Amino acid sequence: MKVDSVDFFYVAMPEVTTEADGSQDALVVRVSAGGHVGWGECEAAPLPSIAAFVSPMSHGACRPVSDSVLGQTLDGPDDIRRMSAALAFNSMDLLQAAHTWSGIEMAMWDLLGHARGVPAWKLLGYDAAYPKIPYASVLFGTTPQGTLERAREMRGRGFRAVKFGWAPFGDSLAGDIAHLDAAREGLGPDGILLIDAGQIFGEDVDAAAARLDAMERNRVTFFEEPFHGSAYGAYGALRDRVKTVKTAGGEAAHNRYMAEHLIDFGRVGYIQIDCGRIGGLWPAKQVADYAAARGVTYINHTFTSNLALSASLQPFAGLKDHVICEYPTTLKQLAVDLTRNHIAPNANGEIEVPDAPGLGIEVNTDALKQYKVDVEIKVGGKTLFSTSAN
Amino acid sequence: MKVDSVDFFYVAMPEVTTEADGSQDALVVRVSAGGHVGWGECEAAPLPSIAAFVSPMSHGACRPVSDSVLGQTLDGPDDIRRMSAALAFNSMDLLQAAHTWSGIEMAMWDLLGHARGVPAWKLLGYDAAYPKIPYASVLFGTTPQGTLERAREMRGRGFRAVKFGWAPFGDSLAGDIAHLDAAREGLGPDGILLIDAGQIFGEDVDAAAARLDAMERNRVTFFEEPFHGSAYGAYGALRDRVKTVKTAGGEAAHNRYMAEHLIDFGRVGYIQIDCGRIGGLWPAKQVADYAAARGVTYINHTFTSNLALSASLQPFAGLKDHVICEYPTTLKQLAVDLTRNHIAPNANGEIEVPDAPGLGIEVNTDALKQYKVDVEIKVGGKTLFSTSAN
Repeated sequence: MKVDSVDFFYVAMPEVTTEADGSQDALVVRVSAGGHVGWGECEAAPLPSIAAFVSPMSHGACRPVSDSVLGQTLDGPDDIRRMSAALAFNSMDLLQAAHTWSGIEMAMWDLLGHARGVPAWKLLGYDAAYPKIPYASVLFGTTPQGTLERAREMRGRGFRAVKFGWAPFGDSLAGDIAHLDAAREGLGPDGILLIDAGQIFGEDVDAAAARLDAMERNRVTFFEEPFHGSAYGAYGALRDRVKTVKTAGGEAAHNRYMAEHLIDFGRVGYIQIDCGRIGGLWPAKQVADYAAARGVTYINHTFTSNLALSASLQPFAGLKDHVICEYPTTLKQLAVDLTRNHIAPNANGEIEVPDAPGLGIEVNTDALKQYKVDVEIKVGGKTLFSTSAN
Repeated sequence: MKVDSVDFFYVAMPEVTTEADGSQDALVVRVSAGGHVGWGECEAAPLPSIAAFVSPMSHGACRPVSDSVLGQTLDGPDDIRRMSAALAFNSMDLLQAAHTWSGIEMAMWDLLGHARGVPAWKLLGYDAAYPKIPYASVLFGTTPQGTLERAREMRGRGFRAVKFGWAPFGDSLAGDIAHLDAAREGLGPDGILLIDAGQIFGEDVDAAAARLDAMERNRVTFFEEPFHGSAYGAYGALRDRVKTVKTAGGEAAHNRYMAEHLIDFGRVGYIQIDCGRIGGLWPAKQVADYAAARGVTYINHTFTSNLALSASLQPFAGLKDHVICEYPTTLKQLAVDLTRNHIAPNANGEIEVPDAPGLGIEVNTDALKQYKVDVEIKVGGKTLFSTSAN
């Protein structure tokens, strides 16, 4: 098969706010090859990601993503890996390329899975997929009382594990402690409590460490992204100051090296990978192997649709001991509508990785029309991209 | 002053080839504030970089670059640093943002320098600027004989130091050895010979190490980018196998952490920073301080116009012992025409960092028109960017 076409679908809610909610828009990708179709999703800013695909070449090491994809042979996993290596070289100086490629790479595994009638996790080399304990991924309440109520709500919905994230966390020490206490109270003594600081402390180790007592008292399982994603020094320094809580990070990794460095130099206990950013399923699988060999727990990072969720589960589907997974529960309607089928907890409250061809998720093409954002890019009088054909 | 406007000028040669020559196009940036104007240049793919400025917001941590810039106070260096920190947070998930911001940040130092009548390097904290020994940055010849002739040509033009880079280096061991011997022969025994592998070995340490004997015999001063920019493990492993040659890298760093990690974990002897990628002058100055404190030599990375060259010299202008600088000598006419004044070696063959307000370079607005690439970006029926107004 040859890659015949790559199509991008930029969709968004009618109103996009400054809320730290990644499900307000999406960039869905469709790859066609040899009569087969696969779908993926970039966890990325749609417009620059489209531009990185259609951009004119700047020079030999700054070529558009399309140059390493269109017309290429796609007969098996090796072809995806070959294209990935070609892209890393050909688009070396095009920063956004990794985000654009992530959705394309994902769609290629989906396509191959459909062509062969096997789940993507089998193509990645796993013999079996093990169920995961989902943690509900929610934002903190605006007040501690709001956090408490959200924790209770999630328990009521059957979630044993809940991750609270972002603002107002970091605004004040007293406020943060109140939110931590409220979260524990709302979850009850047997709940699994996870915290996401959203990089709020930059690289201020003391500021992050000031929250540790309240975290350990409230038995927080992991403390995610206290710092800038690349501040390995700060991660390592905090690691030396924790007693029971583990650090977590990695969602910003846009290649596998970054994730491996966060393990080696930042010494995180949990490595969180978003397949929509790191370059798709294969680099994520490599990170999963790397983490497992070093006693670090792999977790998906997902705050968008169930298409992205399925993709992000594939790389650690076969790691039986890596049992928790991120499961977005407060998705905007767009992200719910984007797929015809959904991944819901089973009777045991567990998430099963789809045992169906490819990613096992059917994209709702009606939603792609309903939430469509029209884009037109012209360069030098030539239309490089237009949604009018969609 | 408030930042009143940021304008982008995408210019390109009539024909752009796959040659590894970054001067075939350019993205020039003009910042206006309080009646003053400053100029900068992104070393980046123009279209995705413009898209990152004008892009609709995806969520609170994936905002367009413009959100952290337009209307902001710009009265001094602290304001630039504040905007830089805001951008890192607001555009955390917009990968291309660092490249877009780099040109803007550069233009802000130029603007402040003009407003205060001082060079940018004084604003960065240096009392004096020391001359540098330029190395001519050229591509390898297609044959060893071509490399030999290019080396002689550069010596003839007065360059004592020459860096050869990219293809066909890496094609074959025998060929590489022939090119290394030819380069040394052409340079003569007292020439400073530098090699840039253009990441051709990926992370294959053995392949890179196979070239070390020929490099050490030919007294290569540094061996640049043997590997993927983030493959710190490979850099560190090669470091353990060299005798006299030093490793160099860092041009792809899009934040200061990446450069610091390459120093700490890749243990390079030379750290090469492109101000058009790392986020402008300030993070580069931080890296220069970091390198100097650790016995690592700082060098600019520049393969574009003299505007970018001046910008890239500022962060280490005051480091007297960091004496060599990259000096592009085979620029496409576009990059020559882009500025009205040029930085040329003085009677001693040295490069003097401009002792003039800001970056000390006057942009040729006629060239911006002559080489202009028309761009129009529409999203949701609204024109977000159009060159027609330029």
